[in-house]
Amino acid sequence: MLSVVLIGTGNVAHHLFRAFQTTDVVEIVQVFGRDEGSLNSFLGEVEIASDFDAIKDADVYLLAVSDKAIGTISEKLKYKTGLVAHTSGATDMNLILSQNRGVFYPLQTFSKDRNVDFVGIPICVEAENREGVEILEKLGQAISNQVFEIDSHQRKKLHLAAVFVNNFTNHLYQIGAEICKEEGLPFDILKPLVLETAQKVMDLSPLEAQTGPAKRGDNESIKAHLELLKDKNQTELYALLSKAIKKTYEEKL
Amino acid sequence: MLSVVLIGTGNVAHHLFRAFQTTDVVEIVQVFGRDEGSLNSFLGEVEIASDFDAIKDADVYLLAVSDKAIGTISEKLKYKTGLVAHTSGATDMNLILSQNRGVFYPLQTFSKDRNVDFVGIPICVEAENREGVEILEKLGQAISNQVFEIDSHQRKKLHLAAVFVNNFTNHLYQIGAEICKEEGLPFDILKPLVLETAQKVMDLSPLEAQTGPAKRGDNESIKAHLELLKDKNQTELYALLSKAIKKTYEEKL
Repeated sequence: MLSVVLIGTGNVAHHLFRAFQTTDVVEIVQVFGRDEGSLNSFLGEVEIASDFDAIKDADVYLLAVSDKAIGTISEKLKYKTGLVAHTSGATDMNLILSQNRGVFYPLQTFSKDRNVDFVGIPICVEAENREGVEILEKLGQAISNQVFEIDSHQRKKLHLAAVFVNNFTNHLYQIGAEICKEEGLPFDILKPLVLETAQKVMDLSPLEAQTGPAKRGDNESIKAHLELLKDKNQTELYALLSKAIKKTYEEKL
Repeated sequence: MLSVVLIGTGNVAHHLFRAFQTTDVVEIVQVFGRDEGSLNSFLGEVEIASDFDAIKDADVYLLAVSDKAIGTISEKLKYKTGLVAHTSGATDMNLILSQNRGVFYPLQTFSKDRNVDFVGIPICVEAENREGVEILEKLGQAISNQVFEIDSHQRKKLHLAAVFVNNFTNHLYQIGAEICKEEGLPFDILKPLVLETAQKVMDLSPLEAQTGPAKRGDNESIKAHLELLKDKNQTELYALLSKAIKKTYEEKL
């Protein structure tokens, strides 16, 4: 049984807490948070602490906190013998001040009030030494069947890729919703397409799945679309994305 | 029973043919195509024709052809009494030269070798008169439970929105795949995130679903990501999308 002190009380902390509760390999012995309000949401389910001196000894200190807080918090843990691991995609492992350090990065988007099933979520682990990697792999395998060992540089690139396929994709949905709204149409009308677009690349590569005016080099349709757009950002995005798609197919096909 | 001559032999024609085959409200009496090779793929399943003079009389002539071919082909059908409808998102209904004209636009992405279930696919119909709308609604309801009557302007805007949520989103997946490849990581590692990003907006609005550095105004992470990017198009896209997301949240929240 691995004992874990979970540090943080935000979305990621909540989702990890729920996931670890279902396993018998990992025991969350304490949740630590500086925000009393959020911390209280764990009340009755696990021991809570808001004072650094009250942090228990454990095998792993899992930091599910904002990127900026990782340095400060790990400083407070530097005399602990357990492994200190953060959960950030963008942050170098070396920002953790303890010698016994690592990373436990679940590659998924988390929102409050939305359940996620960890089983298929890739967990990217990294540690200073082999023993650390093994501990984090055990932790990962307790909740997921997709555990990868990747280094800090790979993880940063992966986080960058995640920004493209999640944050930026979601913004394209937002633009779709705005265009529908202008015409009095519900965003619902786009939902089957949104879902099929994602499902398609489960089977085909994005290169094979591409369709549309830019891929076909259909400049007439592109011009007609640009004339329909009034928002400057949307127009620039349309032009840039069409150019990028055209270039991809000129180069690759 | 509505009799339909299906004109065209590409992806959309194939998918519509399969869908109508499962209903007892619509009978495809003939498939017409000028490309003999593609036309032959319908051989044995339905009567085929490649000569305009051989086109049968029917209640509806459904044009599942490229946008450019709509004018020419509808010209050949102008003495027919049946309804002539195209299936294009981007093309004005008035490009059809018959008086009895309409549009039957299934809002989905179609690829060969990938089955789609029409039941949830929005079918957008438009016609010159009420009778035409009713015929196209009947046709739509035979295969889908999402039939909408929308006009040519709305449809063009919807098609534009579809380009954002499908073509452009798929290109962001492509960028994600390229970034993974640079690090020797499989695109598979991004798939759970791709799927969850789409599934999230089935329940939440894109505005509620947004996360990431740009939404948080985390300029440090944005700068770090920009430094990791080498491709000029990717860098421009990252900057423009981040700017657009920041602007959205400054305005709306």
